[in-house]
Amino acid sequence: MSQEKPLILVTNDDGITAPGIRALIEVMKQLGDVIVVAPDSPQSGMGHAITISDTLFCDQVTVKETFKHKEFSCSGTPADCVKIATQEILHRKPDLCVSGINHGSNSSINVIYSGTMSAAVEAGIEGIPAIGFSLLDYSLNADFEPSKKFVKRITKNVLKNGLPKGVVLNVNLPKLPESEIKGIKVCRQANARWEEEFDKRTNPQGRDYYWLSGRFVNEDEGEDSDEYALAQGYVSVVPVQFDLTAHHFLSDLNNWDLND
Amino acid sequence: MSQEKPLILVTNDDGITAPGIRALIEVMKQLGDVIVVAPDSPQSGMGHAITISDTLFCDQVTVKETFKHKEFSCSGTPADCVKIATQEILHRKPDLCVSGINHGSNSSINVIYSGTMSAAVEAGIEGIPAIGFSLLDYSLNADFEPSKKFVKRITKNVLKNGLPKGVVLNVNLPKLPESEIKGIKVCRQANARWEEEFDKRTNPQGRDYYWLSGRFVNEDEGEDSDEYALAQGYVSVVPVQFDLTAHHFLSDLNNWDLND
Repeated sequence: MSQEKPLILVTNDDGITAPGIRALIEVMKQLGDVIVVAPDSPQSGMGHAITISDTLFCDQVTVKETFKHKEFSCSGTPADCVKIATQEILHRKPDLCVSGINHGSNSSINVIYSGTMSAAVEAGIEGIPAIGFSLLDYSLNADFEPSKKFVKRITKNVLKNGLPKGVVLNVNLPKLPESEIKGIKVCRQANARWEEEFDKRTNPQGRDYYWLSGRFVNEDEGEDSDEYALAQGYVSVVPVQFDLTAHHFLSDLNNWDLND
Repeated sequence: MSQEKPLILVTNDDGITAPGIRALIEVMKQLGDVIVVAPDSPQSGMGHAITISDTLFCDQVTVKETFKHKEFSCSGTPADCVKIATQEILHRKPDLCVSGINHGSNSSINVIYSGTMSAAVEAGIEGIPAIGFSLLDYSLNADFEPSKKFVKRITKNVLKNGLPKGVVLNVNLPKLPESEIKGIKVCRQANARWEEEFDKRTNPQGRDYYWLSGRFVNEDEGEDSDEYALAQGYVSVVPVQFDLTAHHFLSDLNNWDLND
């Protein structure tokens, strides 16, 4: 039985020329029809930013690759890319949106700051099954080869099973040779945070300025967290929701003295 | 019994000169010692962005007000402001962080895009009780007077009761005279979204560009949502968490064919 190939929207937050998105495109072309709409420049740390006070450019670009697919370079954020792709570029709702492969971790609390995941969440809000992929290697020359098998397997599962409304996947891949990756583990987001350190300097005009840096602190001792799985050599898969309501606290809050 | 006054960090995403933060400062000065660290320019729609590829300036500014307190103007995002405040400016961990009052709604899915709420979430990650306040009026000349009583009451409750680890509050206030506001309601985040529309134009050089606009769509018929409460004339209080794990989907996901 012949079926139409799935339409797959590919984006990222490191920019359209990053090696990570090239690796992701290569895998997705084995699974469906690919359209790329990605930022024209790196957008790391952009969280779920959208461009509301500025204009957006979005131009088709030529890609020197063996296989033909369309690519668009957008002046906005990852979330902007998904919005403009679904509203202005694609002729039908895509069957899947994948974002990445990010150069660097988006595990645990990093999901909050992640442009990669904001694209996946934006797609999820629009009812499109979505996955963000991140490799635990910040280097521009990171080796994405070992990730491909796992990216493909997880994507095939999402294409086959779909995802429930309001849920997208956050996938992080350890920086290991393929033979040392132990498999794929379903996890919860670890309770971790960054301890900020600001590097204070003075500019030539005598004005103080800062560079943000920090130290990652994992306060989670559970063996079901993404940080634990990654440390053990597994690929972590965390289902992520964008209903942020802390349902467990609603009844306590109702006992507060909020009204006379 | 005399007690030390609570130390309250005030920030926002509309910028340090916005009328909304002035109203918030006024209320907070009745409740504790205030320090303001806020963006030097509007940051709406910034989501949980942080500045990692650029320098940050953060300068003390003079405020022409009757009561004395310190204010700092920061070149970064709302999340940056909280980070730099706690690490570089404050001599002890604040007892509370409040963000706003935003000029415009951060109810339902808007929480995802909200700079106001990203500041509150950032404080929450650092273990500081935090509240984001937003008035359903985008106007620069919005009237914050009717909000003050409710802002004060909610803040007093948080100072008295604290908040559990991992939870901050998202408060939205209806655009109504004080006499028409029915009270405060504890709610869950409504299931709503934006239907994007892009306004496509051509610049004088002949290049196409877009303005993002959109239509808010509330698909939620529940009477326990923030949108419902606001439409009925209540102030909505949604407890917000930053563990994004979709715990309800973990067991299903474990049944997927992820490993051979």
